[in-house]
Amino acid sequence: MRTTEELRALVVAQLEELDVAPELGSLERPMLYAVGGKLIRPVLCLATAEALDVDPEDALPAGIAVELIHSFSLVHDDLPALDDDEIRRGKPTVHSEFGERTAILVGDALLAEAFRLAASYESPSVVRELARATLRMIGGQQLDFEGSADREAVHRLKTAALFEAPVGCALLLAGVPESRQSRWRAFAREVGLLFQAVDDLLDGDGFVLERGDDGARALADEHARRAQAILGELDAETSVLAGIVDGLTSRTS
Amino acid sequence: MRTTEELRALVVAQLEELDVAPELGSLERPMLYAVGGKLIRPVLCLATAEALDVDPEDALPAGIAVELIHSFSLVHDDLPALDDDEIRRGKPTVHSEFGERTAILVGDALLAEAFRLAASYESPSVVRELARATLRMIGGQQLDFEGSADREAVHRLKTAALFEAPVGCALLLAGVPESRQSRWRAFAREVGLLFQAVDDLLDGDGFVLERGDDGARALADEHARRAQAILGELDAETSVLAGIVDGLTSRTS
Repeated sequence: MRTTEELRALVVAQLEELDVAPELGSLERPMLYAVGGKLIRPVLCLATAEALDVDPEDALPAGIAVELIHSFSLVHDDLPALDDDEIRRGKPTVHSEFGERTAILVGDALLAEAFRLAASYESPSVVRELARATLRMIGGQQLDFEGSADREAVHRLKTAALFEAPVGCALLLAGVPESRQSRWRAFAREVGLLFQAVDDLLDGDGFVLERGDDGARALADEHARRAQAILGELDAETSVLAGIVDGLTSRTS
Repeated sequence: MRTTEELRALVVAQLEELDVAPELGSLERPMLYAVGGKLIRPVLCLATAEALDVDPEDALPAGIAVELIHSFSLVHDDLPALDDDEIRRGKPTVHSEFGERTAILVGDALLAEAFRLAASYESPSVVRELARATLRMIGGQQLDFEGSADREAVHRLKTAALFEAPVGCALLLAGVPESRQSRWRAFAREVGLLFQAVDDLLDGDGFVLERGDDGARALADEHARRAQAILGELDAETSVLAGIVDGLTSRTS
């Protein structure tokens, strides 16, 4: 089995070779500028694939597609009309660097490229999985902007949907029947909520404002515990996935 | 064979029953607000399907998906950072009516819904067709903003791509092999350029600024002539398609 770092290297190599549609012209550069970061979602996709005896390389198009959808959502979220963020991952956001018009088109193009990649499989099931996740994510965004008091409901849509999708794609590629997917999907949602709780701890917002530092830490630990418990039940070699959960629980950036 | 009006009625009925993802919540209303107008692209999809002996009802998901992509592009194009338009189809644009943040999310959600619909077929070929068309359209948008002097190149991407897509989807649904698609696709691109030339005549911009009223009219007539000539060569019952071309040539709104 490949380590998390080996899987991440596969993702990085694939992103470096990413061929966007030539018709996009000068949008290519800001699109590539927008993609990067921790690449947790595609790594989760590849690790789940390998745990299910699918060659991680076969899961690369799905994993990269998820990452492009994640990148699209960040580019649009950062816009002045939404979160109005100037800095992301220590550098200017796409609209700060390239202008608002370009940022809107870059987000649109990233989403369309994601579906182009997802449609490279013989079956449309990966597209269905990603379209559903994207719609849930956008719905969560809207719920958040409306000021919903139910943070967990917001994050189940806004964050967890895009953690469930990479695991869901791996399940589809492995041919796991729907009746046997639910524990895997529950695991992925726990990882998403863990990610969000730790994110809020690092940023001092969200769950921290609601429950304080200790409350957010307890929440993160609870999601990590549940994710590991589900992994323990699954009939698969899940050690790499367990390592990913540990890494997300203790991350400091 | 059904008439153009009968095909349009099928599209309207399907749009009225459109079920967007329930998680989109309060975005549903502005999404439905954004969809409408002449519905030329889905009608073209259904008419091509019928000319190829495919039940037009089977082409509805593809046709509606094309229309949702068209609607997405209008919502984002109208934004202040892009064309900054206040009025569309005689009523306030989505951002004027619902705010800029909502308009950005509505465009995103329309695009994701389009791919969800496109993925309802057994084969991912419709998704591939639509993803490619969307990327070409976005590339054309960018080329236009960059002030390209080559208006025809701009419109081949920005407008014609989304006329080729509905015809392309019908070809795929009819199982027409790639080697026999090129004349059909050329027909669709002529229809797109015809549509654009007439649009510019009605709005007094684009080709009119470049070639004057008479020049733009001559261009429209030339694209109409070429479209009809191709229809005459095709081994299919294309009378409804010929009527659509006539309607687009003489339209006054």
